[in-house]
Amino acid sequence: MDSSDTKSFSAEMLREFCARVFMYFGVSKSDATQAADVLGAADLRGIDSHGVARMTSYIDLLSKGLINPKPQIKLLRSTPSTATVDGDNGLGLVVGPHANQMAIELAEKAGSGWVSVMNTNHYGIAGYYVLKAASCDMIGWAMTNTSPIVAPLWGMERMLGTNPIAVAFPGKNEPPIVIDMATCTAAYGKIEMALRKGEKIPEGWAMDNQGHVTVDPADVIAGGALLPLGSDRERGGHKGYGLAIMVDLLTGALSGANWGPFAPSFAVHQVPPARSVGKGIGHFFGAMRIDGFIEADAFKSQVDDYIRVFRAAKPAPGTSGPLIPGDPEREAEQIRRDGGVPLILPVIEELRSISRRTGVPFD
Amino acid sequence: MDSSDTKSFSAEMLREFCARVFMYFGVSKSDATQAADVLGAADLRGIDSHGVARMTSYIDLLSKGLINPKPQIKLLRSTPSTATVDGDNGLGLVVGPHANQMAIELAEKAGSGWVSVMNTNHYGIAGYYVLKAASCDMIGWAMTNTSPIVAPLWGMERMLGTNPIAVAFPGKNEPPIVIDMATCTAAYGKIEMALRKGEKIPEGWAMDNQGHVTVDPADVIAGGALLPLGSDRERGGHKGYGLAIMVDLLTGALSGANWGPFAPSFAVHQVPPARSVGKGIGHFFGAMRIDGFIEADAFKSQVDDYIRVFRAAKPAPGTSGPLIPGDPEREAEQIRRDGGVPLILPVIEELRSISRRTGVPFD
Repeated sequence: MDSSDTKSFSAEMLREFCARVFMYFGVSKSDATQAADVLGAADLRGIDSHGVARMTSYIDLLSKGLINPKPQIKLLRSTPSTATVDGDNGLGLVVGPHANQMAIELAEKAGSGWVSVMNTNHYGIAGYYVLKAASCDMIGWAMTNTSPIVAPLWGMERMLGTNPIAVAFPGKNEPPIVIDMATCTAAYGKIEMALRKGEKIPEGWAMDNQGHVTVDPADVIAGGALLPLGSDRERGGHKGYGLAIMVDLLTGALSGANWGPFAPSFAVHQVPPARSVGKGIGHFFGAMRIDGFIEADAFKSQVDDYIRVFRAAKPAPGTSGPLIPGDPEREAEQIRRDGGVPLILPVIEELRSISRRTGVPFD
Repeated sequence: MDSSDTKSFSAEMLREFCARVFMYFGVSKSDATQAADVLGAADLRGIDSHGVARMTSYIDLLSKGLINPKPQIKLLRSTPSTATVDGDNGLGLVVGPHANQMAIELAEKAGSGWVSVMNTNHYGIAGYYVLKAASCDMIGWAMTNTSPIVAPLWGMERMLGTNPIAVAFPGKNEPPIVIDMATCTAAYGKIEMALRKGEKIPEGWAMDNQGHVTVDPADVIAGGALLPLGSDRERGGHKGYGLAIMVDLLTGALSGANWGPFAPSFAVHQVPPARSVGKGIGHFFGAMRIDGFIEADAFKSQVDDYIRVFRAAKPAPGTSGPLIPGDPEREAEQIRRDGGVPLILPVIEELRSISRRTGVPFD
């Protein structure tokens, strides 16, 4: 992105702004601070699509009464290492951290903790959650289902969300390894970006609304669908499809939330799903105490060794060699912590509009 | 495959043969029966590469003293929901079922059970394990690392195994959904098959030993490598690479087994790894009681609904519509349970040779 098209803001200032806006819409101070912290983590880590750029969507839903600003989060069921939570239709940015913390607390006592969440909404970046567990010497897991935009392999309808999976493993002197990936080939945001720039998309990302592979981003917007990781049968598209189902069942069916084509949309102006098979969307969090398996220090030293071995691998031609999952986000964070978060002008305009509407000052 | 090139044998007969061969090499009757049961499941479910076709490899390792026929499987560490097991260098076909059963038993009491296994060997098909948990109204998980054949994204060396992930979800009236997938694009067996047939392989499966994408299977055999699921950066190859690392850390580093380029080979004639960073290869098993989250019956009804909704999806052009993960293996099992397991002549010859060597009768 051309830096002349962006302006940088301190992450602290953006967090403060978001928190105050959430409070304007009836969210308690502690919940608002928590929600803003998740959004701020996305902006800091360079995942621009999941940070302040989403404020308009969140407050649209809050202001229309479609998200509950004061959820009473309820424990529906539990065993020593598992639990199900009803998010009471709260912000996923509030319900998610609460349930993730429950998973960590279950793990402290039982060795591992697994929490399935129903009746919730978009929870921001999955990486936020798993890093919390990693900082407690645990292996963290986070998944969520999302509204349908991905076709099943050999299907031609939007039936699955981008259904991300995140897992984090702490290192000792090296940073944690953080896997954080949607189970489709490419993010929807990349389709929109290609459309804006008038560019084609690579073959393997998407199909048009007749089920044919397309390289025209406009075809995707016009009722096409993204393809699961692997793209087609020959290249393992059945595997990405299987992973998307796994996430959907753990987050949706296991908690009592909606799943598949029936997961409600994040945007107020979208057509509602044909059926309701549960409440809201679903999340799934996990935490495993490393010392439930092996000395935590020994494991973390192995992670360090792992990172160094893979960093030292012979680079493929034209590349600088393998990255470690989590590298790009950590590098963005190092830059943005000091240099601020660069926002594009349309996002700045949206935030100014929110500022005018709520009276919360912005820049 | 031309049916004239195969001959069918009853699964029961093959299992009996394998069990007696394992006993000839010093494996106890109950362990030999267990090991043969895992191999038999692969043959029944149509995963021919993982069944009796592997007997020669197993007995090579047993006869050279490289696998311990009488392992004393030891619990190294545990919490209410986690455990680590030392497989004492036994057959993975014996150690795996033992550890998987431990995961199920932990889950019975604590809601979930997670068992990491070190000092073990190839465990057969991952699907075998997760179906056991599913039959107990649990969600089953199984992973294993394997000897290196896959390149990390942007690397040009064999540094990761095919590192499969399996997860199963039981249905009520419908069969279970069984996800069972290697984290690379295509199996090594498909490369060998293409070479035998003189065919090219699709772009996206593999690189040659200079790190260039190749469609010639001979390049892969000659020191090339398979590509992670997603194939390249543009199509999400970093995601398959991330999943392979996840499996490697859960099975290898977490248990105290070898990982990455240091995982020992399944075949006696291969060059041993450069370093040892643990013992043997590693597995990871999980079981989660469904009623630790939601009524088991309600969940299984949702799985039925899920299956029906996805089966009814509009088919993409030229296809018969989406499959449900586990369909192909279940259909193979239905056919082979009555019609027998078709073996190709080279495999039959190997089994006859084993028969001559051990005195265990074969056909």
